[in-house]
Amino acid sequence: MNHSKFRFSVRFQSTVRNIDFNPESLSLTPRSTVFSLIQPTGRFHLGNYLGAVRNWKDIVEYAPEPTRLIFGVADLHAITIPKNAKELRDNRFEAIASLLSTGIDTEKAVLYHQSAVHEHAELSWILSCLVSMGNLNRMTQWKSKSSNVGQNASLGLYSYPVLQAADILLYKSNFVPVGDDQSQHLELSRTIAESFNRTFGKTFPLPNTILAPTRKILSLKNPEKKMSKSDPAQNSCLYITDEPDIISKKIKKAVTDSISHEFKYDPEKRPGVSNLINIVSGIQKKKIKDIEQEISAFKDHKQFKDYVTDIIIEELKPSRLKFNELLSNKDYLYQAVEKGNEKARVVAQQTIKEVKQKVGLE
Amino acid sequence: MNHSKFRFSVRFQSTVRNIDFNPESLSLTPRSTVFSLIQPTGRFHLGNYLGAVRNWKDIVEYAPEPTRLIFGVADLHAITIPKNAKELRDNRFEAIASLLSTGIDTEKAVLYHQSAVHEHAELSWILSCLVSMGNLNRMTQWKSKSSNVGQNASLGLYSYPVLQAADILLYKSNFVPVGDDQSQHLELSRTIAESFNRTFGKTFPLPNTILAPTRKILSLKNPEKKMSKSDPAQNSCLYITDEPDIISKKIKKAVTDSISHEFKYDPEKRPGVSNLINIVSGIQKKKIKDIEQEISAFKDHKQFKDYVTDIIIEELKPSRLKFNELLSNKDYLYQAVEKGNEKARVVAQQTIKEVKQKVGLE
Repeated sequence: MNHSKFRFSVRFQSTVRNIDFNPESLSLTPRSTVFSLIQPTGRFHLGNYLGAVRNWKDIVEYAPEPTRLIFGVADLHAITIPKNAKELRDNRFEAIASLLSTGIDTEKAVLYHQSAVHEHAELSWILSCLVSMGNLNRMTQWKSKSSNVGQNASLGLYSYPVLQAADILLYKSNFVPVGDDQSQHLELSRTIAESFNRTFGKTFPLPNTILAPTRKILSLKNPEKKMSKSDPAQNSCLYITDEPDIISKKIKKAVTDSISHEFKYDPEKRPGVSNLINIVSGIQKKKIKDIEQEISAFKDHKQFKDYVTDIIIEELKPSRLKFNELLSNKDYLYQAVEKGNEKARVVAQQTIKEVKQKVGLE
Repeated sequence: MNHSKFRFSVRFQSTVRNIDFNPESLSLTPRSTVFSLIQPTGRFHLGNYLGAVRNWKDIVEYAPEPTRLIFGVADLHAITIPKNAKELRDNRFEAIASLLSTGIDTEKAVLYHQSAVHEHAELSWILSCLVSMGNLNRMTQWKSKSSNVGQNASLGLYSYPVLQAADILLYKSNFVPVGDDQSQHLELSRTIAESFNRTFGKTFPLPNTILAPTRKILSLKNPEKKMSKSDPAQNSCLYITDEPDIISKKIKKAVTDSISHEFKYDPEKRPGVSNLINIVSGIQKKKIKDIEQEISAFKDHKQFKDYVTDIIIEELKPSRLKFNELLSNKDYLYQAVEKGNEKARVVAQQTIKEVKQKVGLE
């Protein structure tokens, strides 16, 4: 019997979980910590919403007491790609306002800015002394991001997964909801946690990856690519703050195809239609085939697109209103973030103190 | 005319200074900052003393008001080479006690622990996003330290010069006394400062390197190598805390040569004798040839070694007594360090706030 293979598959099963739309499927163990950060690209679009923060909200709603729930804006990661200062400043506040506006219960969950908690950078330095260059050289995201710039790539871009490990371990996280492009980084976080535990004694739990139930949301104008704020195509990206008439216009202009007698999920042959079906499935937390059933009577594009538009408008309305309210009252927004920062710091301070004592720095 | 060559030499002249034993030769500009850190290898030996901290003390004594004088123990750098926690904990307190015991005036200068000021790690992360891998790959210290371990070398070892740049720039340092093995890292600190200033507006002065007036202190038993705590040879290393009889014994056993009719400085042919002459020159702040003059009448090894022994014992006496006093009153020691940490934090907080605002993180 091949022991190492067997162990790997068990380990893989135990650390990566695909959840369905019912967050109870997560079976959160009592007293566990769920943690994730999102990059501050500004106000969220539908991809950020369905791929990340809507799941955070669901997890917060479902999570049994006491679960530690910490979510934030990864502004220290944002600077690994050069940014204009004003753009970053605006984006990090629009991102935290987006997060607050999605209705995550801030009595149960912490929402905060990564850069406001200095322990991230401190733990990152300490962990960087335990990570080999060999491990980092294997990161596929690094390879693809640095491939065009070669030796000009920054150290920050290279060290990105170590800061990410520090983020996760700083809160002793058990569950980390992320996109599947982050699975390799999560695996490295576990390697780093194991290395620290082996060297200095059991300190960190090994974090489990949680993959979102909704498939990737694609550009409305070019459904071969991810939905992205930086897409130059007008109308390709739907923001959670878009007014109903804007949503209506963007869906009207969304690329579909010439088949109008039926609307089926077929991402290979009908990427535009499939993307819209996937959006509805995500919003309504229903299986793709249930949505296909619901729309089986539609016989033209207008019917189909009106249906999609109504569902999106209805879903995003509360976030849009809350977002506008937050941006029109910045003092309140700053106070809300600072409350979250303070709560995050309490946990971070405990961990960094323990780490420093174990390493010999205290 | 070759412009680039001309500019390079001017620049080199303006950023690297060899000072002589009179620190007035530094001609410190008013309101400047002098900064340096030393690795916590425990209690200082004569190489640490004459190569680094005795110069710090001289600079502090000479520096015109207001000069900002900040010196500390680089415990975050120490962990780039794996350390046992107890060893590191002991070493960082013996190092700070050594520093305090050398008589540096703590009313004028700040003495502190690097890891107690979290802004070092924060600034290091921010700067790491401005440093190219190409620049780091050129560091000769990295090349030599990583040559045996290859891909197993840690990220911390590779990022070492970026943390060092953060140390220096955090206090807006103008002058940095270091050993000449650090010249390349100092050059990189300037490159990083220039890069930050260019991108975010003038923030950091370009730090100048100050090289110590005393030549490298060598092992007493093997004067081809640097004096080092990790030297396995018994009696090769003289600590500033050594009792007179220990100093006497170690000098008696120090390697010299068979020539006893004269004692001359000739590091190639007479490394042992030259090392002892260099030690006396350093302690007495006199030129090598003045020491040769003083000892020209000596006709045997005993005379020569007694002379060296007396000078060392006399020089180190106050440090030894102060060190023992500090270690026997740890509460006082901790308080003294914490006072230094607090003063360092005040400066560090100002800089990190300015940096975050300029980058867009505040």
